[in-house]
Amino acid sequence: MSVTSPRGFLAAGVSAGIKSSGARDVAVIVNAGVSAVAAAVFTSNRFAAAPVLWSRQVIADHEARAVVINSGGANACTGPGGFADTHQTAEHAAQLLQNKGHDWGAGEILVCSTGLIGERLPMQALLAGVGQAIDDLGAQGGATAAQAIMTTDSVAKETVIRADGFSVGGMAKGAGMLAPGLATMIVVLTTDAVVDAELANTTLRRATAHTFDRIDSDGCMSTNDTVVLMCSGESARRPDPIEFARAVHDACADLARQLIADAEGASKDICINVQHASTEEQAVDVARSVSRSNLLKCAIHGEDPNWGRVLSAIGVTTAAFNPGEVDVAMNGVWVCRNGAVGDSRDGVDMSDRVVTIDINLRAGEGAATVWTNDLTADYVHENSAYSS
Amino acid sequence: MSVTSPRGFLAAGVSAGIKSSGARDVAVIVNAGVSAVAAAVFTSNRFAAAPVLWSRQVIADHEARAVVINSGGANACTGPGGFADTHQTAEHAAQLLQNKGHDWGAGEILVCSTGLIGERLPMQALLAGVGQAIDDLGAQGGATAAQAIMTTDSVAKETVIRADGFSVGGMAKGAGMLAPGLATMIVVLTTDAVVDAELANTTLRRATAHTFDRIDSDGCMSTNDTVVLMCSGESARRPDPIEFARAVHDACADLARQLIADAEGASKDICINVQHASTEEQAVDVARSVSRSNLLKCAIHGEDPNWGRVLSAIGVTTAAFNPGEVDVAMNGVWVCRNGAVGDSRDGVDMSDRVVTIDINLRAGEGAATVWTNDLTADYVHENSAYSS
Repeated sequence: MSVTSPRGFLAAGVSAGIKSSGARDVAVIVNAGVSAVAAAVFTSNRFAAAPVLWSRQVIADHEARAVVINSGGANACTGPGGFADTHQTAEHAAQLLQNKGHDWGAGEILVCSTGLIGERLPMQALLAGVGQAIDDLGAQGGATAAQAIMTTDSVAKETVIRADGFSVGGMAKGAGMLAPGLATMIVVLTTDAVVDAELANTTLRRATAHTFDRIDSDGCMSTNDTVVLMCSGESARRPDPIEFARAVHDACADLARQLIADAEGASKDICINVQHASTEEQAVDVARSVSRSNLLKCAIHGEDPNWGRVLSAIGVTTAAFNPGEVDVAMNGVWVCRNGAVGDSRDGVDMSDRVVTIDINLRAGEGAATVWTNDLTADYVHENSAYSS
Repeated sequence: MSVTSPRGFLAAGVSAGIKSSGARDVAVIVNAGVSAVAAAVFTSNRFAAAPVLWSRQVIADHEARAVVINSGGANACTGPGGFADTHQTAEHAAQLLQNKGHDWGAGEILVCSTGLIGERLPMQALLAGVGQAIDDLGAQGGATAAQAIMTTDSVAKETVIRADGFSVGGMAKGAGMLAPGLATMIVVLTTDAVVDAELANTTLRRATAHTFDRIDSDGCMSTNDTVVLMCSGESARRPDPIEFARAVHDACADLARQLIADAEGASKDICINVQHASTEEQAVDVARSVSRSNLLKCAIHGEDPNWGRVLSAIGVTTAAFNPGEVDVAMNGVWVCRNGAVGDSRDGVDMSDRVVTIDINLRAGEGAATVWTNDLTADYVHENSAYSS
């Protein structure tokens, strides 16, 4: 149930003292298999962090042998010095792995960082932690690696999807600054399937577009988002592309749901289904606009089926619909019909953690689902004190 | 210091029992002057409320004689029945005003409503309130009218700008669901200047674009936003267009600042200045993106000069800039230089209510200022209980 579930992977997570709490903060995941195929997707934020700039170069040849991740600092907006720190981290890891008989260069080492923006990393502690993690690498190390990448997460997030003759493992972090393109997070996926670089790349992009890109906790896009897929080939099984895509999608969907369920301060998980949009893209636009309404998110926190706030959020989009023909259901009760008052809101039970909003635009056959969460005083408290 | 400060206007605000609190909830403002010239700007939300649909028709001929406003219910998303309610309100007011010797039809009566979306108005109480307000109309009635349009506002908002031989008065309501295009609000401006319809219209549009459109409390656009300007001509003074524009702009700017200062739950007013953007439009885009970052708004609530959250919000825009050349100051301290760590954040004093963020994009000569406020637990509490 981790990145070390598929054959060919080693991992470890250690405490290097970057986090003041003393919790684990450095993880290393190694692909020691017969294949080095890898793919990655990164944030589209233009202030991409140093490790994102580095890892984009590493993945350009569609191969990678290891991922080094630190929590406790994002190494974002740190200028050329911050980039040199990332480079040094990869060089250091490559040297130590060479000492253990792995003939890999720094150009095969992905680096990810997460934590506060705008501060340099404590390099001495980080490099010592990388050394310790490489010493501790093991085939059972996935769980400690998943712990080491946590920031404000309250639980570690792991998954494994077992398919016919191969498996996909994964871990994720991310609780705030969660928004599409991607959600603020770091995700490492591993598989022992035999796949070529093109299949790995297209499969990962399609899976993230339909999972991580469709969760939106607080509309804030990170500078550090990274999703990595490493393929060891150790199962000797070459799956059908559709079969492989399903396994990767399921792993991403499981991790995405775990991210939303642990969003900062959240007490409700909100599933926004848009049906009968003109196109899938317009369905996503409408769902995204609704997912970003602070007023709606507060209302749902108060278990108030305030569908007027759903309509006001739909009404700022350019999606095709007639305002007099839009229906909205909250937990199955169609409280808004034809853009006006529908069935009684008294029938809506919002006591469960999951709240479902169905929106029928009656404009075509496009559909999409976006997950978000409620806005709570706990979110405010957590994020007004985070960097202090 | 109100809508009745300029000559030619009468107003009143009464309690009709629409608000359960018993507070004033119906206002009527009448232009009894020699001119009926008027202009108005409305929400661009596609789920425009019934009174917006009605008032757009009224203003089409650039004349209006009265505005009837109720708080306690938005009459939005109420279907054809809701529109009939608005129509009936205008007809009723016109009939009562005719009884007092004013030969005006319903087509000269603007109607505004504010409050909960998706519920029909209590028409019997509303029409009785309109009758009482018309009976109470007076040249000192501006203050009670300003009270009658409040919803979650904690104070009434009024202004008067005295120019050479004429004046501009105004009142506004709005504390939540404040976002551009317009901010969730109702504003009535009055003037005794002699102006023609074209000047009234262009002046009002330009003034709102640079004031109300540049405040953003919570990113949520209302279904009911309306700004009305009525011109009585009673001063007999025909001002220079630039002089008139300055007075209307100043009245709008004063009311806009009052709205942000009273935003729901806010403890900080945040002024976001973007300088050296490629164009004014791009400056507004960048300022708007920053103003909508829940994470930044929480950080400022915690008096934390977290400039990384400013950059991450800038980084999702398409404005022209080089990420390695962006500078950010918080309350005058340039904590970010060249997209990286600048002067020490320890020097930033955030104890005052007003917090200023300066952003230098080094991409041209466009500039813009957007005002927002912090995100607080009080905002969450207020908006999770609003409709219950």
